[in-house]
Amino acid sequence: MTDYRRLRVALLGAGVVGSQVAALLRQHGPELADRAGATLELAGIAVRDVDAPRNTDLPHELFTTDAESLIVGADIVIELIGGIEPARGYLLQAINSGADVVTANKALLATHGPEIFDAADQVGAQVYYEAAAAGAIPIIRPLRDSLAGDRVQRIMGIVNGTTNYILDRMDTEGVEFADVLAEAQALGYAESDPTADVEGYDAAQKAAILASLAFHTTVPLDAVHREGITGIDKAMIDAARHAGYVIKLLAVCERLTGQQDAGASGEAISVRVYPALISRTHPLASVHGANNAVFVQAEAAGNLMFYGAGAGGVQTASAVLGDVVSAARRHIAGGIGVGESTRANLPVVEIGRVVTRYQVTLEVADQPGVLATVAGILSEGRVSIATLEQTVIGESEAGSGSARLVLGTHKALEQDLSETVERLAESGVVERVVSVLRVEGD
Amino acid sequence: MTDYRRLRVALLGAGVVGSQVAALLRQHGPELADRAGATLELAGIAVRDVDAPRNTDLPHELFTTDAESLIVGADIVIELIGGIEPARGYLLQAINSGADVVTANKALLATHGPEIFDAADQVGAQVYYEAAAAGAIPIIRPLRDSLAGDRVQRIMGIVNGTTNYILDRMDTEGVEFADVLAEAQALGYAESDPTADVEGYDAAQKAAILASLAFHTTVPLDAVHREGITGIDKAMIDAARHAGYVIKLLAVCERLTGQQDAGASGEAISVRVYPALISRTHPLASVHGANNAVFVQAEAAGNLMFYGAGAGGVQTASAVLGDVVSAARRHIAGGIGVGESTRANLPVVEIGRVVTRYQVTLEVADQPGVLATVAGILSEGRVSIATLEQTVIGESEAGSGSARLVLGTHKALEQDLSETVERLAESGVVERVVSVLRVEGD
Repeated sequence: MTDYRRLRVALLGAGVVGSQVAALLRQHGPELADRAGATLELAGIAVRDVDAPRNTDLPHELFTTDAESLIVGADIVIELIGGIEPARGYLLQAINSGADVVTANKALLATHGPEIFDAADQVGAQVYYEAAAAGAIPIIRPLRDSLAGDRVQRIMGIVNGTTNYILDRMDTEGVEFADVLAEAQALGYAESDPTADVEGYDAAQKAAILASLAFHTTVPLDAVHREGITGIDKAMIDAARHAGYVIKLLAVCERLTGQQDAGASGEAISVRVYPALISRTHPLASVHGANNAVFVQAEAAGNLMFYGAGAGGVQTASAVLGDVVSAARRHIAGGIGVGESTRANLPVVEIGRVVTRYQVTLEVADQPGVLATVAGILSEGRVSIATLEQTVIGESEAGSGSARLVLGTHKALEQDLSETVERLAESGVVERVVSVLRVEGD
Repeated sequence: MTDYRRLRVALLGAGVVGSQVAALLRQHGPELADRAGATLELAGIAVRDVDAPRNTDLPHELFTTDAESLIVGADIVIELIGGIEPARGYLLQAINSGADVVTANKALLATHGPEIFDAADQVGAQVYYEAAAAGAIPIIRPLRDSLAGDRVQRIMGIVNGTTNYILDRMDTEGVEFADVLAEAQALGYAESDPTADVEGYDAAQKAAILASLAFHTTVPLDAVHREGITGIDKAMIDAARHAGYVIKLLAVCERLTGQQDAGASGEAISVRVYPALISRTHPLASVHGANNAVFVQAEAAGNLMFYGAGAGGVQTASAVLGDVVSAARRHIAGGIGVGESTRANLPVVEIGRVVTRYQVTLEVADQPGVLATVAGILSEGRVSIATLEQTVIGESEAGSGSARLVLGTHKALEQDLSETVERLAESGVVERVVSVLRVEGD
């Protein structure tokens, strides 16, 4: 066995991912040493309670509650605590004490990324975070390095496994949201408080990280438009299928050109998370269950897709360990860390400035002149109709029939569309706005 | 505009990819400088004939026939000449004169990779080659870095666009091989001498590169088992469809356990390229046209897939420029290059040692006792039948009918299977061995 230089690895957190990272580090030690060119010595695991029951055969003496002492003297610090504090403080301590750091903490990076990257730049440390954007799917290095010579035009990502599982089950088995959510919670696919997933907060954090990388721009989390999937019901899923679509919670990161307030380049970006219709023939439509996928459209490379498991302890541990080996190789090679590329500084526009297609479903009175009124309001609002389907749905309370109107629009400005839908709702001929969904992917 | 350090970039070759690289470098110069933290100055383009007609508006004074002088003083050398010499000599000169090098030359890396990587290690240079394995699809960094902490079990890649285009057209439009090849040549998807593509040489080079990365082992090109698609006809495609399969030219890189001659670990690898059957429900089955995809199964990460354009000038240029930006960042950051990870040193087994499923199609005499004879030979040969379909196909010359027998086997050793098929051919009851195809992906 080669006599490699020893690198001290400090692990913070021993949850689902952390315990897998520790187990794999110990299990594959010699193999990882051969790959890294350095022996990775697990110096300790910082936890809140060393005596908490753990489903692991890691030696008890590895555990400590003293994260700060563990960080001192570590070459590589792996942060898998999650949340903002104390994770942020520990990462900054690690960077300032000369360690390279590995984190899977999307919440922290999406909110305090610039502070952490700046601290690393000051001392020449490197921050690795492959597990923070799409679990086990290698997407950070492709965006950061492989596509660094290209211009990304658009990313559409299915980056939250829980919501994809829920929407996929609703689509394939015709179950209602509440039922499949309860089932997902029982199976461990959804948390007991599912807000972070179903309201799109998790996807929004990942979207901020992906957009920052893709567009070389710091994207603050509060610039990400976010809508969840709690408003999606079985009827909307069925109507989508009828029209050749499937509903997915998408993280869309898009380069916009010809923007008025976007400075000399005329370019800006939009970063948004919402349930959207995509064609059943689109590659993202075949991403089933809790899987994730990131579809990237680049000027030169064309269409690319990255597919795999978006979550799971051992899957995420794979991404974390890849970062640990990279950090070790860099430690051996010397040199300073390569900072984040954020100098494009593109402005992030509000959702009202986004241009996309829409499907608007209305219940209207089944009377002469209604369609003319609706068409007039759309036309005034600069929303052009591409497809129209009307079906009679039965008697209204007034005795006359009601009809359901499904309007597919050409590309329209979100602001125009939302104002137009408001005017439709107040027009007197529209009984109910059933749904307004964006159509993505073309 | 920030005043960055200038890095001199030498480009060798101005073909389909090279001219795109030069154009993009000039077009996006300031943007690339912001990303790289260095101004990338195209110092010159080495070609065989500076006055050859070129469909480009690059200034004439950039061109030179003196590659060696251009390389002197370059910080980054991009080799897009292709072939072994003079590309090999130029790369070695560049490395020894202190440059980092970027190449898309799969033939060179598959045959002289170790020499080039060793030379880089000696001086601490870095070799980048994202474009050499799957065109624009980022696969090198994911395998080299993101999965460095995992254990890859198997790669199945559609890594040749020409053959995928041909097989896809044969499948979707029912055309014969020769017709679609002629059409592909007319469209520029296939070379006038299509041997490198249709006989699997191109895919074998890529398989050697992918396997080297995935298994941390130097894989010599002559250890790659290679079969092309010229033997695939419409009848085989139709039969595959009938059975729920599609035929794809696959590069399979597989970790084998429990191997007798494989040293202490008992592990070895197999690297092979051949047309194989995969289920129509497998993600690789939906890779159409000239697209490529690499499906990776890893112990911890699970199943991953990377999809995109496998060839094309501007697409490949994207991968090359990503490497150039990476090389520039490393130049600025300092430190030595990170060498290739090849210390696992796993032996590559011969094709006879591979275990997979097979579909064997036979024409047999439609007589009593034939099936018993066939079943007996299979059983003696340690090949177990999973599925069997017999159809009568008409009168034979002897007056009795012939039957077609499609046998699906359980997993069997290739050596056992090929010996068994030989015995079947000589058994007297088999009139013709129509096809023997491996079944991959399960």
